Amino acid sequence: MSFTDIATRTYNHSFRLDPVVRTLLDTDFYKILMLQLIWRKHRDVQVTFGMVNRSTKVRIADEIPESELREQLDHARNLRFTTRERIWLAGNTFYGVKQIFQPDFIEWLADFQLPDYELVRREGQYELTFHGAWPYTTMWEIPALAIVNELRARHILHEMGRFELDVLYARAKAKLWGKIERLRALKKDGPLRLGDFGTRRRHGYLWQRWCCEALQEGLGESFIGTSNVHIAMEIGAEAIGTNAHELPMVYAAMADDDPQAVRNSRYSVLDSWRETYSGNLLVFLPDTYGTSEFLRDAPDWVADWTGARPDSKPPLLAGEELIAWWRGRGRDPAQKLIVFSDAMDIDSIEQTFHAFKGRARISYGWGTNLTNDFSDCATRADQDLRAISLVCKVLKADGRPAVKLSDNPLKSTGDPHEIERYRKIFSAVGMVETPVLV
Amino acid sequence: MSFTDIATRTYNHSFRLDPVVRTLLDTDFYKILMLQLIWRKHRDVQVTFGMVNRSTKVRIADEIPESELREQLDHARNLRFTTRERIWLAGNTFYGVKQIFQPDFIEWLADFQLPDYELVRREGQYELTFHGAWPYTTMWEIPALAIVNELRARHILHEMGRFELDVLYARAKAKLWGKIERLRALKKDGPLRLGDFGTRRRHGYLWQRWCCEALQEGLGESFIGTSNVHIAMEIGAEAIGTNAHELPMVYAAMADDDPQAVRNSRYSVLDSWRETYSGNLLVFLPDTYGTSEFLRDAPDWVADWTGARPDSKPPLLAGEELIAWWRGRGRDPAQKLIVFSDAMDIDSIEQTFHAFKGRARISYGWGTNLTNDFSDCATRADQDLRAISLVCKVLKADGRPAVKLSDNPLKSTGDPHEIERYRKIFSAVGMVETPVLV
Repeated sequence: MSFTDIATRTYNHSFRLDPVVRTLLDTDFYKILMLQLIWRKHRDVQVTFGMVNRSTKVRIADEIPESELREQLDHARNLRFTTRERIWLAGNTFYGVKQIFQPDFIEWLADFQLPDYELVRREGQYELTFHGAWPYTTMWEIPALAIVNELRARHILHEMGRFELDVLYARAKAKLWGKIERLRALKKDGPLRLGDFGTRRRHGYLWQRWCCEALQEGLGESFIGTSNVHIAMEIGAEAIGTNAHELPMVYAAMADDDPQAVRNSRYSVLDSWRETYSGNLLVFLPDTYGTSEFLRDAPDWVADWTGARPDSKPPLLAGEELIAWWRGRGRDPAQKLIVFSDAMDIDSIEQTFHAFKGRARISYGWGTNLTNDFSDCATRADQDLRAISLVCKVLKADGRPAVKLSDNPLKSTGDPHEIERYRKIFSAVGMVETPVLV
Repeated sequence: MSFTDIATRTYNHSFRLDPVVRTLLDTDFYKILMLQLIWRKHRDVQVTFGMVNRSTKVRIADEIPESELREQLDHARNLRFTTRERIWLAGNTFYGVKQIFQPDFIEWLADFQLPDYELVRREGQYELTFHGAWPYTTMWEIPALAIVNELRARHILHEMGRFELDVLYARAKAKLWGKIERLRALKKDGPLRLGDFGTRRRHGYLWQRWCCEALQEGLGESFIGTSNVHIAMEIGAEAIGTNAHELPMVYAAMADDDPQAVRNSRYSVLDSWRETYSGNLLVFLPDTYGTSEFLRDAPDWVADWTGARPDSKPPLLAGEELIAWWRGRGRDPAQKLIVFSDAMDIDSIEQTFHAFKGRARISYGWGTNLTNDFSDCATRADQDLRAISLVCKVLKADGRPAVKLSDNPLKSTGDPHEIERYRKIFSAVGMVETPVLV
């Protein structure tokens, strides 16, 4: 007997919109960590963020109707942190620390709202920019990326029949579980620590949640958590994260034109961070203006930090460089943490796991290739669900252009003239050009 | 918002039993074709069927509680052909023919009920036998096999968590779709005709239905239908089938002790069949007492039949033998149909497709490896969902023991002394010992 529940069916069919982002907690944990610092120390700095599609061949504006994009962005602007969400942020233990978020910050969150956006369509792309005070504009990064990526996926999914969708998700699940079985084999060989960093490039919220549950089920203790705050809360996992390029980029932009001030800003940002957080949250991101130069110039206290997150140098190279540096500074690399998070997938995880086993504490922030690996999963060859290299970066801080050089010149962002100016301030020592895939 | 429909949830949780077989149409089409012949010509013959597990290492009775098995068998005994099912059988076109089932037969079906069973537990196996008039006992074969096979699968499924089940079915779907993609590639190379013959060994009803829908979606016209009558009706596919060993086995058992009468029975059964059916249903099953001898001794009119279904000789060998025989009898093999149905899987389908392309009309009855291929799909190695070689065969007809020799001596069934007697009547010419996998 099949029983049609008319009420539920009618309810489900009367939605005006299927929101991509349903809560402000559907963001990366490090955004909230950074937000507290920004709100406490730089709440009046005006920072402009802008979305850039590095996969220029994909004409996003031809795939996603502008009205759909606006509806989703407008919906995100209507969201507020709910009482129970703020209670959870205030009461939960993060990285083993209670009350990582102070009461005044939690109170301020009650009125938080995403600021307005500017959307212009140009040559098949959307120019999506966010102007305003830094504590507001910073919070657009993740929902904006998640919205555009998920709308792209939906554009293809809408063409697929019930059966094609069934096969698609069956294949994607089988594929991910195959990777998890390889990770389980690694676990037998030594300690494995791996978490989800895939919110921004995910296929969709429900799929990201399934991926996290799969890791939880398959890896047990080796699954150290997810960067997605809402999923962490929902599935009872740890919310994890470090910090992002936006901090050094704004600090550098706000520095004087004096090259020495720009160079110093790389460490003053760490100083701000350690005033706010401690312990396992003391993980530095060395590549904003080149890792090799960052390490060479770093004050000695940087070597006391818990670890580093290389994000644009080939991981084997990056790991060796960090280990050599800690050793050169008289620290024991085996006690230090390296968080690999740049375009990792099962092959590079296996390689680095074996290469650094016992030589440093390694953990993985698995992003796009965890939450958006649908290659060869569609039943038709023309249904291309591959992720694109979409980023949302700081463009300006208090009217001054912001720049990222990165260890990979192909990942640098900013106005070309400004990039040139920064390249004169920082040498290209240790930089490696590598194709940007995700 | 998540809305709990209390009525549906309560209804779903209050089932006393989850039946494996929910309708008498959940059987193979050829059983109903044979049933009409049996009912019309041999309704008073007493025939005993018995279930045999050829995979003796698997102790079925240790896996399935007797009470569960009895509940399912009892439930099947409560089923009747419903009015709309009989209307469909009477009104539907099968193999392009209207009213293949005569009105008096359809009327008789209204009161049909599966007869009683005898269940004894011995050395880790169940001895399940069905005694009575042939038109009744014959109908137990498919539901009995489906029930035991599905209860075995459930025994393992019940130990699996929500997530393990999710991965299991994702992998099984991905695996089957991978095979379908290979079949799609074959289609580009020539005409492909393939149907589902997997009811008896299926993982479960819903899974068999999914497999049929996958073939329907993936192969279009090349999917020629399913042997499962209920699934055919539900998904709008053709119900397909030929005839089975039980017919020649009973005919041979009823023949005199005179060896010549036993030999002749192989062709008198075909005579009965052609009185009842015609056209595409004239497909003979040559291997009951050895194909080579069957073909050598066959009256010439057998070569006029539409085709043959080799069922126990390696398929390449069987196809070549049939083609040579038709040619030797002055018939054009390219006009003849060969239905391969013995343990076929994607590799043997590809091999025979290429070997016989243009030389004969080929079709495939895909069984166990379609509807029950879960090898390497479970998340834990000890969850063995492999199908076993379970059969339900005629043991006696009117008190005389029944025997099958088959082209593969390992597939012969019957009392050992009787098998010896039959081996003296039929030579072993052309027989090939081959491991029995499914």
